[in-house]
Amino acid sequence: MTITYDEDFGSLMFRWRGSLWKAVLKDLIAFYIAYYIILFAQWYLLEEQQKEYFTGWIIWCEIGSQYIPLSFLLGFFVAVVVARWWEQFNYVSWPDKMMMMVAANIAGPEHLQVRKTIARWSSLQSAIAWSGISERTLKRFPTDRHLVESKLMTEEEFDIYTNLEAPHGKWFVPTMWIINLLKNLHQRKVIDSIQLDMLLKQVFSFRDGFAMLYVYDWIKIPLVYTQVVAIATYGYFIICLLGRQPKIDEKSMQKEITIMFPIFTTFQMLFYIGWLKVGQYLMNPFGTDDDDFELNYIIDRNTYIAKMMADELADQLPSNISHELNV
Amino acid sequence: MTITYDEDFGSLMFRWRGSLWKAVLKDLIAFYIAYYIILFAQWYLLEEQQKEYFTGWIIWCEIGSQYIPLSFLLGFFVAVVVARWWEQFNYVSWPDKMMMMVAANIAGPEHLQVRKTIARWSSLQSAIAWSGISERTLKRFPTDRHLVESKLMTEEEFDIYTNLEAPHGKWFVPTMWIINLLKNLHQRKVIDSIQLDMLLKQVFSFRDGFAMLYVYDWIKIPLVYTQVVAIATYGYFIICLLGRQPKIDEKSMQKEITIMFPIFTTFQMLFYIGWLKVGQYLMNPFGTDDDDFELNYIIDRNTYIAKMMADELADQLPSNISHELNV
Amino acid sequence: MTITYDEDFGSLMFRWRGSLWKAVLKDLIAFYIAYYIILFAQWYLLEEQQKEYFTGWIIWCEIGSQYIPLSFLLGFFVAVVVARWWEQFNYVSWPDKMMMMVAANIAGPEHLQVRKTIARWSSLQSAIAWSGISERTLKRFPTDRHLVESKLMTEEEFDIYTNLEAPHGKWFVPTMWIINLLKNLHQRKVIDSIQLDMLLKQVFSFRDGFAMLYVYDWIKIPLVYTQVVAIATYGYFIICLLGRQPKIDEKSMQKEITIMFPIFTTFQMLFYIGWLKVGQYLMNPFGTDDDDFELNYIIDRNTYIAKMMADELADQLPSNISHELNV
Amino acid sequence: MTITYDEDFGSLMFRWRGSLWKAVLKDLIAFYIAYYIILFAQWYLLEEQQKEYFTGWIIWCEIGSQYIPLSFLLGFFVAVVVARWWEQFNYVSWPDKMMMMVAANIAGPEHLQVRKTIARWSSLQSAIAWSGISERTLKRFPTDRHLVESKLMTEEEFDIYTNLEAPHGKWFVPTMWIINLLKNLHQRKVIDSIQLDMLLKQVFSFRDGFAMLYVYDWIKIPLVYTQVVAIATYGYFIICLLGRQPKIDEKSMQKEITIMFPIFTTFQMLFYIGWLKVGQYLMNPFGTDDDDFELNYIIDRNTYIAKMMADELADQLPSNISHELNV
Amino acid sequence: MTITYDEDFGSLMFRWRGSLWKAVLKDLIAFYIAYYIILFAQWYLLEEQQKEYFTGWIIWCEIGSQYIPLSFLLGFFVAVVVARWWEQFNYVSWPDKMMMMVAANIAGPEHLQVRKTIARWSSLQSAIAWSGISERTLKRFPTDRHLVESKLMTEEEFDIYTNLEAPHGKWFVPTMWIINLLKNLHQRKVIDSIQLDMLLKQVFSFRDGFAMLYVYDWIKIPLVYTQVVAIATYGYFIICLLGRQPKIDEKSMQKEITIMFPIFTTFQMLFYIGWLKVGQYLMNPFGTDDDDFELNYIIDRNTYIAKMMADELADQLPSNISHELNV
Repeated sequence: MTITYDEDFGSLMFRWRGSLWKAVLKDLIAFYIAYYIILFAQWYLLEEQQKEYFTGWIIWCEIGSQYIPLSFLLGFFVAVVVARWWEQFNYVSWPDKMMMMVAANIAGPEHLQVRKTIARWSSLQSAIAWSGISERTLKRFPTDRHLVESKLMTEEEFDIYTNLEAPHGKWFVPTMWIINLLKNLHQRKVIDSIQLDMLLKQVFSFRDGFAMLYVYDWIKIPLVYTQVVAIATYGYFIICLLGRQPKIDEKSMQKEITIMFPIFTTFQMLFYIGWLKVGQYLMNPFGTDDDDFELNYIIDRNTYIAKMMADELADQLPSNISHELNV
Repeated sequence: MTITYDEDFGSLMFRWRGSLWKAVLKDLIAFYIAYYIILFAQWYLLEEQQKEYFTGWIIWCEIGSQYIPLSFLLGFFVAVVVARWWEQFNYVSWPDKMMMMVAANIAGPEHLQVRKTIARWSSLQSAIAWSGISERTLKRFPTDRHLVESKLMTEEEFDIYTNLEAPHGKWFVPTMWIINLLKNLHQRKVIDSIQLDMLLKQVFSFRDGFAMLYVYDWIKIPLVYTQVVAIATYGYFIICLLGRQPKIDEKSMQKEITIMFPIFTTFQMLFYIGWLKVGQYLMNPFGTDDDDFELNYIIDRNTYIAKMMADELADQLPSNISHELNV
Repeated sequence: MTITYDEDFGSLMFRWRGSLWKAVLKDLIAFYIAYYIILFAQWYLLEEQQKEYFTGWIIWCEIGSQYIPLSFLLGFFVAVVVARWWEQFNYVSWPDKMMMMVAANIAGPEHLQVRKTIARWSSLQSAIAWSGISERTLKRFPTDRHLVESKLMTEEEFDIYTNLEAPHGKWFVPTMWIINLLKNLHQRKVIDSIQLDMLLKQVFSFRDGFAMLYVYDWIKIPLVYTQVVAIATYGYFIICLLGRQPKIDEKSMQKEITIMFPIFTTFQMLFYIGWLKVGQYLMNPFGTDDDDFELNYIIDRNTYIAKMMADELADQLPSNISHELNV
Repeated sequence: MTITYDEDFGSLMFRWRGSLWKAVLKDLIAFYIAYYIILFAQWYLLEEQQKEYFTGWIIWCEIGSQYIPLSFLLGFFVAVVVARWWEQFNYVSWPDKMMMMVAANIAGPEHLQVRKTIARWSSLQSAIAWSGISERTLKRFPTDRHLVESKLMTEEEFDIYTNLEAPHGKWFVPTMWIINLLKNLHQRKVIDSIQLDMLLKQVFSFRDGFAMLYVYDWIKIPLVYTQVVAIATYGYFIICLLGRQPKIDEKSMQKEITIMFPIFTTFQMLFYIGWLKVGQYLMNPFGTDDDDFELNYIIDRNTYIAKMMADELADQLPSNISHELNV
Repeated sequence: MTITYDEDFGSLMFRWRGSLWKAVLKDLIAFYIAYYIILFAQWYLLEEQQKEYFTGWIIWCEIGSQYIPLSFLLGFFVAVVVARWWEQFNYVSWPDKMMMMVAANIAGPEHLQVRKTIARWSSLQSAIAWSGISERTLKRFPTDRHLVESKLMTEEEFDIYTNLEAPHGKWFVPTMWIINLLKNLHQRKVIDSIQLDMLLKQVFSFRDGFAMLYVYDWIKIPLVYTQVVAIATYGYFIICLLGRQPKIDEKSMQKEITIMFPIFTTFQMLFYIGWLKVGQYLMNPFGTDDDDFELNYIIDRNTYIAKMMADELADQLPSNISHELNV
């Protein structure tokens, strides 16, 4: 789940879960180790003249690091990734409007079972479809049997579903059942064509979310683009391993102060690597990172709400107004 | 509420409420204090040679500050935040079109009570839903009893609402009542299926606003991104604390002029910290800042307008044309 | 009105109305005056050593001006403003489609008066709503009496309208009348529910434009953002007042040529101040600038077209095909 | 018409039509002439000391040219222009869906004439509307008589159309005729209200394209913005006329190599002027440039397709399935 | 097909298919060859004084390369291309919703043949339309006979289709057949007008995808823009051929270290050329590159799914609920 936070920038800094510190830590440690190995090698293994020559390398890397337009690359890349990430969340399907429409058109205790079945199938649809794109949901429903065990599917439905041969996927089957159920009601004149239209619009919009998430799952940001950004970022810091070394030959030490800790590079890693990690996390929002969408929670919430709308809320009306109406 | 202003850039500068000056003041004072502590320490505590060494640190920080692509980070970040902020305001729900549709389809004095109930429930819906996302609205309606006291809810509705068990939220209940009321009218043939469709479309679009605001409230901009930007900005000015000190060793003072006030840094704080504050304020538009949306005012406005549309305006028609029609 | 121009870049440069030259002139003159006052002061009042010291200040300001990322700030800011400006124009309401729908569904000479009334009310609606957001329209209709005088409102309508108590605005009243009129036609079976739906959709989309313009008028770009940009831009040129002075101490004059006119700064003012003015003009597109939208012209145009569609065009059909149809 | 090309970057470079080379050629030649005039003047007319002084000017211009953030200005400007250009093309109206809807609802040989008339009027509508925005279409139909001659209009329609007084434009008249024709069919119960709705939706969406193109034609990108960009770009190269001259005083010639051809400036002209031309061409996509949309071709295409859909395709159905249906 | 990958940045680097390495390899080798030819020429053919002169050229090119704002040009260009690429994929038509709507409205075994025909025509439509824009699909169906052989078309349909004279294209003919088939059902009262509307909406939205892809195929990003970017990128590296040569005259070799391998330029090629290739690949997403959309696979998938929805799934309903309904 996305980490919720209030925007007080003070306390914001000292968070761990889903934070910058957690994201950057490993890379930072690796950098320090490599940096100090080189520093000690330079200090103890090189003689004065070699140190001077090494200083030439440092200067050369210092200049070279300026050739990398890191902020530009990251800025454009992360802008694309953030846009995709938000679009993806907006394709998470909620059954609320579909169930409201069901309540509005298929009223009365005599249709309670129909409404409850549609509610259950909406959750079944989510569980099946999201298992295909989310690691966490797949872990929860690793096989179709788990759907039956969690009461989202009856034994009969399980048989029908598993017997269906579908080399190109069959995640949309529960939606087909809902459609066929509505068609049945239409044929039996429980609802007229206009009501069928109203209901199907909500069913289709519910379905669209799943279809679009499959599209996002299938068509990723091109590999080349991701590689370009990753290579530029990590390459930059590899060059910095040399380019930000203190210059410890005697001439240099007279000219400028010698500082043994790469403070600005640390600082740069914080936001450059941090920025890259923003992109990396948001590229795959249905994984198991701290910031990923919690589809499993959403399934629970939706199952509860859909049932509530099918059952208690479907005909609930405060009596004062209903009394008024019936006079 | 967003501060309204005319765009005369002259007078624009001297505003206080919601202004840059107010936003930056605290950070600026903190900076000055730290800056002059360091300056005095450098001046009185260091000897000449130490001063020279300190000048090395200043130069080193001066160079280091250039490694931070602040304008880029802030530019991309604020662009994302501004877009979100505007989208959020566009999801503020107005009952106007729903009430117009009610007036168009549920006419006549015999349905006055129905129209007024829908109007009241639309305000009740706003009050309940916005309490979940806005600090100010929550302050106004801290408990469900306050809804009854402000006449948005009857006692009976209060009982029904509070008795509903809903671990995953029940803010949508008033919308369900509106839907059930319309269904009732449809069943009693007051409106036909097409009119039901027209009405439900407006009810759903009214509801969507609340649902989307919950989504924006739940899924924030990832913490890492916010931290990256905050650290880069404040880190920049911490480096400037040293890097923009006057160089007061003798050699430096001969080479260049010595100015005791960090005028350009002040200037930079004005727009960099100001830019960051733009982002910070807009990230949480339903808080209590000067620039935040005034949902409480909107509730009052909507309650009044909805009632007016349900009552006086619902059948108002200048007589010349209605005369024409009835001939 | 937006200045129309053909894109020949040659002649484009020599336009005055709505041009860069007009936008920048005042600021440029103010800059020159201040610049030459400082220059003469430096020349005549300072002695050689003071001049040298002053040269230190010039260099210091030269460096300081580079700390301001003007192009970035302006680029991002103007991008936001241009997007808003264009969105606002797209919310200008045109009655064309509503009147076409009226012609399609309320046919025949017997309904001429109904169609003409709807046409008139559409203009009345524009006049009332736009008076709330546009200076020019407010100047044209400073009081409600002016609506009667310009024949957009009858005396009776004036009475109804002015007697309506509405602390939270009542600009939508003419739309309510149109809706009530259509409802009346529906109740008298002139149109069926589907036709009512078709008509109301157009009425609502006509109304939406006004509502959205009120939203844009109410929720501006946050004051802080505007101030950040204005301060950065003007601050930059204040720094340039010193930083672009010729260095007139003897040492400097030997090293580099001395030019008494700030040609590059003039140049920079042209496009930086010009860019800022683009933002400033477009922030308030309903004012009285050369480039602002001419809502008054649009009211005239719409009044004429709406009446034409209600009257002459409503049943116009070349006879060859209508002959064909009636055989 | 937009130049079609395959994306082989090799051969892409050697295209002439609609190419960079064609776009930049004139400006490049003008630059060379001015550049070499200055160069020869410097070479033959100046004495050694004057040359040294001139070198001061060159250095000064070299520095000055860096003050212009050309890539930023062009980047933001062209982004806006490209977005507008693509939106404009998407508002080019195609009659395909309207004619399909006509075929679906107004079937049978008895309505062939109706369908063909609607098809013809759709082309008439395009011809009239696009004459108002496109130079090429205006050249093709300079007067209304040309519409009759090209068989888009009958003599009778010509009379009706030309006799209509319309100071605010009358381009929408053919759409009104289509609407009135459909209304006639509805009144005579050939189509029911739902079918009328389906048809009108397509007619309106066909009409919207023309209306939007008029909006884009009327409200241009503000003149100031265009001037800012043009002045910055050409100003840059005027500064380069001096700033990129070889330094031909003796001191300079010893210090650095002297190259008599401004190769990098040529290079910069290629992409800066080229980038500007992208903007310039796309700002007016209905002109006569190589890259402009060929509305005349589209009219021909649409006339043919609309007629085909009205005639041959309207009732075409392979017999196997129609046989099946009729059993 | 877009290369699918999980986002582990470690393993991401060592992919070959669709990777950066593959994209850049050829250009990199060409660069190395040219670079070392120049290097050897400089080393062996030039004398000391010539080397010094050559160093002047190197410095001159080093400075010149900074005049090219490559990251900006590429950033803006690739942003435009990525947006277009994603839009194009979203216009790939899926028959799912159309077939669901068919199942919902044209039920029962008696209409099995109708449903299957619509399913087949939807695939036929894809095959015909995509042959016009995708190289791969064209390879699969090089002539209309191949459509018959792959059973997408009957012999009779082939005759009708090939006999149709259509100088301006006829890809939309199968859609016309679907529409005519639905019209036939409507005329025979199998479906009412509302159901016709529901069905046609899905058919039209299915069709829109093909029409839009033709638009994207026809109106490319203007040639000038593409050329600007290509010339800037390749021009930059041509300048680097000189500007990144080691300076091997004696003076220079004393001043700075001499490195015989252009490591930073290699690095720059990786991401600049890589970035350009991102643009190049995505500009033509229907070609035969590794990252291109696999329309042929989509045709297979759609053919299978459409048939399944027409046949097995069309009336499938678990018996518990259908039992409930029929009681």
